[in-house]
This record gives sequence, structure tokens and C-alpha cells, in this order.
Amino acid sequence: MPQVTVTRRLTFNAAHRVHNPALSDAENTRLFGKCNNPNWHGHNYSLEVSITGDPDPVTGYVIDLGEVKRIVEREYVSIVDHKNFNLDVPFMQGTNPTTENIIIACWRVLEPALRPGRLTRLRIWETENNYVEYEGR
Amino acid sequence: MPQVTVTRRLTFNAAHRVHNPALSDAENTRLFGKCNNPNWHGHNYSLEVSITGDPDPVTGYVIDLGEVKRIVEREYVSIVDHKNFNLDVPFMQGTNPTTENIIIACWRVLEPALRPGRLTRLRIWETENNYVEYEGR
Amino acid sequence: MPQVTVTRRLTFNAAHRVHNPALSDAENTRLFGKCNNPNWHGHNYSLEVSITGDPDPVTGYVIDLGEVKRIVEREYVSIVDHKNFNLDVPFMQGTNPTTENIIIACWRVLEPALRPGRLTRLRIWETENNYVEYEGR
Amino acid sequence: MPQVTVTRRLTFNAAHRVHNPALSDAENTRLFGKCNNPNWHGHNYSLEVSITGDPDPVTGYVIDLGEVKRIVEREYVSIVDHKNFNLDVPFMQGTNPTTENIIIACWRVLEPALRPGRLTRLRIWETENNYVEYEGR
Amino acid sequence: MPQVTVTRRLTFNAAHRVHNPALSDAENTRLFGKCNNPNWHGHNYSLEVSITGDPDPVTGYVIDLGEVKRIVEREYVSIVDHKNFNLDVPFMQGTNPTTENIIIACWRVLEPALRPGRLTRLRIWETENNYVEYEGR
Amino acid sequence: MPQVTVTRRLTFNAAHRVHNPALSDAENTRLFGKCNNPNWHGHNYSLEVSITGDPDPVTGYVIDLGEVKRIVEREYVSIVDHKNFNLDVPFMQGTNPTTENIIIACWRVLEPALRPGRLTRLRIWETENNYVEYEGR
Repeated sequence: MPQVTVTRRLTFNAAHRVHNPALSDAENTRLFGKCNNPNWHGHNYSLEVSITGDPDPVTGYVIDLGEVKRIVEREYVSIVDHKNFNLDVPFMQGTNPTTENIIIACWRVLEPALRPGRLTRLRIWETENNYVEYEGR
Repeated sequence: MPQVTVTRRLTFNAAHRVHNPALSDAENTRLFGKCNNPNWHGHNYSLEVSITGDPDPVTGYVIDLGEVKRIVEREYVSIVDHKNFNLDVPFMQGTNPTTENIIIACWRVLEPALRPGRLTRLRIWETENNYVEYEGR
Repeated sequence: MPQVTVTRRLTFNAAHRVHNPALSDAENTRLFGKCNNPNWHGHNYSLEVSITGDPDPVTGYVIDLGEVKRIVEREYVSIVDHKNFNLDVPFMQGTNPTTENIIIACWRVLEPALRPGRLTRLRIWETENNYVEYEGR
Repeated sequence: MPQVTVTRRLTFNAAHRVHNPALSDAENTRLFGKCNNPNWHGHNYSLEVSITGDPDPVTGYVIDLGEVKRIVEREYVSIVDHKNFNLDVPFMQGTNPTTENIIIACWRVLEPALRPGRLTRLRIWETENNYVEYEGR
Repeated sequence: MPQVTVTRRLTFNAAHRVHNPALSDAENTRLFGKCNNPNWHGHNYSLEVSITGDPDPVTGYVIDLGEVKRIVEREYVSIVDHKNFNLDVPFMQGTNPTTENIIIACWRVLEPALRPGRLTRLRIWETENNYVEYEGR
Repeated sequence: MPQVTVTRRLTFNAAHRVHNPALSDAENTRLFGKCNNPNWHGHNYSLEVSITGDPDPVTGYVIDLGEVKRIVEREYVSIVDHKNFNLDVPFMQGTNPTTENIIIACWRVLEPALRPGRLTRLRIWETENNYVEYEGR
């Protein structure tokens, strides 16, 4: 059976501060520089959600991407959009919101929510010059 | 020998209707929503064709991408560009033209045509928010 | 009072056929080439709606772009998205749906709907390689 | 003398909250919705700075865009990048940081700093779907 | 009669060196820095050609953009693509190939070639971070 | 331990000529066409550098992308930016600067420089229509 990967892109924007509360302010400044600004900064994030499978013989879809959009908006984007990753997002509490930690938490939220669709890759662009990818392992 | 993947992007636009003629109209509407419009809709598709191999010691090319462009235009783009996927494309007859089925049919056309170049990935963007990928297996 | 222009971008996709029914088939083919395909083709359109004014002293907005989005979706995008410009769009009936004619009709729909916001420019991208602009005069 | 407009694009990211302190919280929520989140949100901004003039006969430049970049980074980007528009930016104090107000303040900073270059247009993209333009009048 | 502006985008790539032969090498280095490298550097240029007019009542076109593409390719792109602006381009001889001078020379070539179409704007992107515009006066 | 891939994009521009000095001029012309122009041509290259690892528990980073940027600028971009790949770049001497050979040489430079970061993929866009990828094997 041919395995096709389908991807839906969604965007959101949020504030954050890269900060480890277990470290001193001086250490946070040294490690994170301007990303540690106590008054926050923010980004337009672009999230790509990829699901792999064989197309259904009846629909021709691996999964209905309209349904993927609805699930990702309900389970993830509505929680983080126009929010502060450090203060407002329950599943990020106690986590330093680097893009690496954001994508791992995003996987934990979306992987079960998208079943039986099989999530195989997330990609998050933080700016036009950097992005992260995670395949769940 | 180092294996490099080279990719050529080409664009085309086409009309289609996501529709399974084995199902009732009501069922088609339920499954495919506005994508089932009987009067068609359409997209600007962007197709990325990737070929992997070791660069030829004489040319420094895995494959001449100008030649890839000519083959893909002759064998695929000229058949689908400014056409209707449901009505005009011989190798899509009897196939519901979801992007998943479009990419599988595209692989069947291009994989033999590009030999001895080794096609390893196709990616098709249907809109700026969704794309599909297929590696031929 | 400083005049600022604010722009909201929206996307939709549609099928069309460039065709003048007053001309013979041969003449239509000669004038419009592959764009005259009787089985239609289609595009992902990107529409930019620009409104000019001085920012409101209370809100800091020329106009609430969320409201612009709602108006443009209700009055225009919902009528044309996933539709056929020749067959499905009431305000395009009897009009050859070139991008020029599409943008003039779009202005006629949006200019009154956006008042008291002052529409000053529309831009429509038909493909990544061509777009049209209209300032209402 | 031919008048050419040259443009340099720069990017930065910042947090903000659309909020008018003269209004009640309820009124702020009603007017600004999710953009009023008290914990802030943020954006990747893209700023386009345009200068018009006739090319210098010796250099062939209207203005050295490397010099434009240095001025804009020193006078504007270094003040706002990775900052909070409401809390950290001296020339935005007391101003509701809508994109309209951001671009007017940006003009006030850059227009004198770029002289004798003649600033003729600023454009700021707040997201991929909205931008503002200002020509200084 | 409504005036619509239609734009066709074309791309090409070329080598150049920003250099004024009337100046000393030291002066050229001081003025142009790394852009003065005697061994050249190069760019992917993106050229936007805009023509304004009222749509023809028969065709619905201001001008056939396919014809614009053919004219611009024949008269300009075929002369500069994969070429060296300082050495290979007849209409740039004796001209320092800054983007300003490139766009003025491009206008001189295209404006008569596109008649009776009325060329109203050229825009040339030299990199993703800088572009120039010229309206022929 | 979750393995995340982080990517930093950087841009540069350079001149080159696709040419094999071991072949005759006629053979070079036949093989490389306009890319063999003896007076060079050039491109805006976009380089994506990807590093894979588990996020550090203290920083939340796989690697500090600011540090990646500094290393790639110092070890690679500063050597090739605004340069001629055939004439100016020490580690390309004797190599035909196809994008395939450029990416292999880039890997040889960056892989040791980025350690202990584990370089897992390079991608280089030569134009908006073609790119190459290399995973070091």
C-alpha cells in the first residue's frame, strides 16, 4: 500500500521568554541573551503537521485535512495563539519555551488527538531563518 | 560515494472536483464539502521532483536539472497544466483527484521517465497551507 | 492627520475559463490559448484589500482588520471560494473572468461593504508570477 | 533626473498588547479581543524602508543601502528587537502599539536619521496576512 | 474607463561588480566594499513589469500577459540571464551596474518594446532584502 | 531521549561558472549551456544548516542557534559571500562549482566546525526553482 504523507500548515503568534528559573539572572542572561528579556518578546509561528498513511480507497484521503485543521486548532492553536508561552499555556508550565521544548510539548498534545491518523512529523518555524522538526522519538 | 538529492520545482494550475462516482451525491457532499462543487474549483500546484545519486565525476551533476525540467514538462506538466484533472488527464481517469491520488499517479508517470535518474521524492503543494509527499513505496 | 494604509490578505481558490461567448470558438482559442480550455482550469488567488485613513485616537486603528476580514469573507470570499467564476458567481455573470474583470467586480462588491472604511487599493495574485491592481478609478 | 525608489527590508520580533489604558478592561476586551491579552503576544515584524532620489552620478546609488541598514538597525531595530512595545520602547510610551501607531512612530525616528536621504514610504508586515504603509503625510 | 495595472514577474540571474572605472581602486573599495570584488559576485534577480490601461472590451485584458512575457524575455531577459552585467550586456556598457542603473536601462529597453502597452512601473528585487522601483520619470 | 532537529538559514550571493577544465570548450558548452558563460553568472544562495540532538535539560536547546550562525558565518559564509566560487574560494579549488559539489564541500567545512553539534542535513537553494540536500553520506 503506498504511504503518502499529508501536511497541514497553521499559523499562530505568541509571546515568550527563554528563561530557566533554576538559574540565576546573570546565568540566564549569559545563556539566552536578548531572548531572555524579562518583558518578553514574540513570534509569528508557523506549524506544519504531517500525517502518513495509505489513501483510503473510498475517499482518496490519508486523512481529511479539514478535520486535521479543526483538531489542531481546537487542541493546540486555540491554547497558544495570542498567548504567552511562559504564563498562559497549561501544558508548558515549568518548561523553558525554547522552540525545541515547544515542539516536544506540541507532539504530546497532537499525537493522541489526531489518532487514528498517524502523526509522523512536526515542523515549527519561529522566524523565517530558523525552524525545528520532531518525529516523535 | 556521497549521495546528494537534487530537486527541481515546477508549477502548473488545474481544475478538479473531489468526487467518488461510486457514492451518492449526498455522500459526496458529506465527505468532501466545498471540494465537491459540481462546477469545479482549481489550484496553482507546485511540484518538487527530487532525484538522488552521487555526482558524476565529469559533470559534477547528479542529473542535469535542465533535462529533468524538460522531461517533467513533456511527460507531466504539459498533460495537466490548464486542464481538468477529472476530465482531461488520461492517467487520472477513474481516479478521485485528491492530492494523494494525484501524487501517486505523478510518480507512476515520472519514475520510469526519469531513469536512469533515481526518483526518491515528490512533493506537491496544493495551496500555501497544504502539501503531500510520496517516496514511491 | 497622518494617513495610513492598512491591508488584509485573504486567499481563495476557484475554477475559471477565459472565454468571450460573443466570439467563435476559433477566435477564443486564438486569443486565450490554454486559458480557454472548455473543461476549465483554476488558481489559488491571493487578495489584498487596502483601506486608508487616519488612525482612530481611541483604538489606534484605521479600521479593525478583523472586521475587514469578516466583511470580505462574507461579501466576497464565501461567494467565490471553491467556485467556478463563469458559472457560480452572480456578480460575474456575463463577464469574461480575466483577472482584470475579476478585480473590477470585486471592487464593486467590497467598496460599499467596507464603508465608512475607504477602500483605496485591491491587489489580486492569480499565480506567483502575475497580479493585478485596481484603485477604483 | 530619473527618480528611483530603493528599499531595504529588515526584520525584528517583539511582544505587544493592543490596549488603551484610558478605557476600562471590558471596553479593551470588546475592542481588541485576543490582541488585548494582558500577558502579551508577539510577532515577527518585517520592515521595508524606501528612499527616493536620483542615482548619484559617481556611485550609481540613490543611497548606499548598507548605510541605510546600519542607520535603521542603530536607530530603530536595536531599540525594538526582542523587546516589548508597550514597556521597553521609549518613543512608544503612552501609545497604543497598533501597527498603525508603530509605523507612525517609526517614521518619526527614521525620517530625520536617514537625511539627506529622502524617506518616502515605510511598510510593516505584522503577519503574513496584514501589513501597513505610511508615506509621512 | 477603469484603469487596471497588470504585472508579470520574471526571474533571471547574472554576475556583476559594482565599480566606477573613473575612480581609483582604493576609492572603489571604500565606496562599494564587498560589492566591488574584482572577481564578481551575482544574484537571482526578480523583475516585475507593470502595465496600466483599461481592459479591452473584447478580451477583458489590459494586455495579454503571455505576450508581455514573450516581449520581456526576447528584449531583456535573454540578454541578461546567465550573463555578466559589466561585460556581456550591450545596453549597460559604460554603466556601473548598481540596481538603480540596471532598472533605468531596463526601462529604456522595455518601454518602447511594450507599446502600445503603457509601462508604468518596474520593480527589481536583487536579494530578498532589497529592491528598487522606477516609474520612468 | 527525544531527538529534535534545529535548522538555521543563512543567505549569501556569489558568482560561478559551471566548467570542467579537463574538457574542451565545445564539450563544456554542450554539457553546461548558458551555465558555462566564460564571463560568469551568479546566484543568491540560501543555506539551511540542520543539527540533531536531544535538548539540553539546562538550556532547552539542542544547540544555541546564535552560535550556529556565528560558526557558519565565520567558517563558510564569510569565505563565499560576494565571491567567485571558481576563483576565490580556497576549499573549492579544482572543483567544478555545481550545487552538488558546493554542498559536499560545505559539509566538509561545517561538519567539524559545528561539533559537538551533530550536523545531519544541509540544504542549499540556488534559485527559487532548484535546491540540493546532503546528509553527509
